[in-house]
Amino acid sequence: MRKIFLLMNVSLDGFFEASEHDISGFKSDFEAFSAGAGGEVDGLLFGHRTYEMMKFWRTPEAQQMAPQIAAFMNATPKYVASHQPFDPEWDNVTVLSGDVIAAVQQLKTSSGSTIGIFGSNQLCVSLMHHKLIDEFQIIVNPVVFGAGTALFTGLPQKTELTLKTSRQFQSGAVMLIYHP
Amino acid sequence: MRKIFLLMNVSLDGFFEASEHDISGFKSDFEAFSAGAGGEVDGLLFGHRTYEMMKFWRTPEAQQMAPQIAAFMNATPKYVASHQPFDPEWDNVTVLSGDVIAAVQQLKTSSGSTIGIFGSNQLCVSLMHHKLIDEFQIIVNPVVFGAGTALFTGLPQKTELTLKTSRQFQSGAVMLIYHP
Repeated sequence: MRKIFLLMNVSLDGFFEASEHDISGFKSDFEAFSAGAGGEVDGLLFGHRTYEMMKFWRTPEAQQMAPQIAAFMNATPKYVASHQPFDPEWDNVTVLSGDVIAAVQQLKTSSGSTIGIFGSNQLCVSLMHHKLIDEFQIIVNPVVFGAGTALFTGLPQKTELTLKTSRQFQSGAVMLIYHP
Repeated sequence: MRKIFLLMNVSLDGFFEASEHDISGFKSDFEAFSAGAGGEVDGLLFGHRTYEMMKFWRTPEAQQMAPQIAAFMNATPKYVASHQPFDPEWDNVTVLSGDVIAAVQQLKTSSGSTIGIFGSNQLCVSLMHHKLIDEFQIIVNPVVFGAGTALFTGLPQKTELTLKTSRQFQSGAVMLIYHP
């Protein structure tokens, strides 16, 4: 069974995005990527909106800014959960439309190693409801947004997690790793 | 100048209380008290609503449950910010009504050592606006509330903090310590 983990940035006040979907307050992506989403990741899963932002990694600017990450993002099989089919306009992408839960359950039993989800709050809440996420890597950034959308908005009940470990980054962000 | 620090529990999704002021999801109070609010604390500051909960510590039940903390809470000078004067019904309490900011500024220049604020979100937001809090000890609990009131609700703008250190507790809570 393949492991699925979530990598998600939040502000100290628990928002995964500030007002108007603003995520410019997060600065720890590269460090976190190296720390958490290591070499064993051979699949990436996104919600549609996050995917549209991730398409940045196919551009020449991304190639110049962080060539290793860009190469990884281009080469790694990507899965996008979407209500409707759409043209992904990128290599190595499978659009999971229709019954996303069944598609992810199938993905989990397919051959391969670890699958990482970056962001994609709404998708995560659905997957949590079906116990399909094995690890939560939450990066608490040293910033208070004051307003925004709370982590796991839409989760219908209080959910306890088990802390496995934590680590500080140079940026002042702290990664907290939990299991269900 | 006396140092003022804040000790505040939050859920992983950034709520200092769940719906209907429920804080029963936090379990790290005693550990955190020992870790953060050490022997140097010789003053406590609360908002009125938090103070009403803190009055638990004057009861025989508190005395039995955690005699050291109860003794500390009874003996330590307590200051309560309140819009209106009221009868505190506890020893060593000063009610700061009227201009709370001026009263806290005066408290900061009075003789003594460190002053701890426990909880009291609304008071904290006012004090942050006037740069009166020197340290933030935020305890991230291993629980997702799904709904509640966000940390520092009412803060009018994005605010960056500087991480000083972090520590894990047995309970799975993590204390993150920031300076402004």
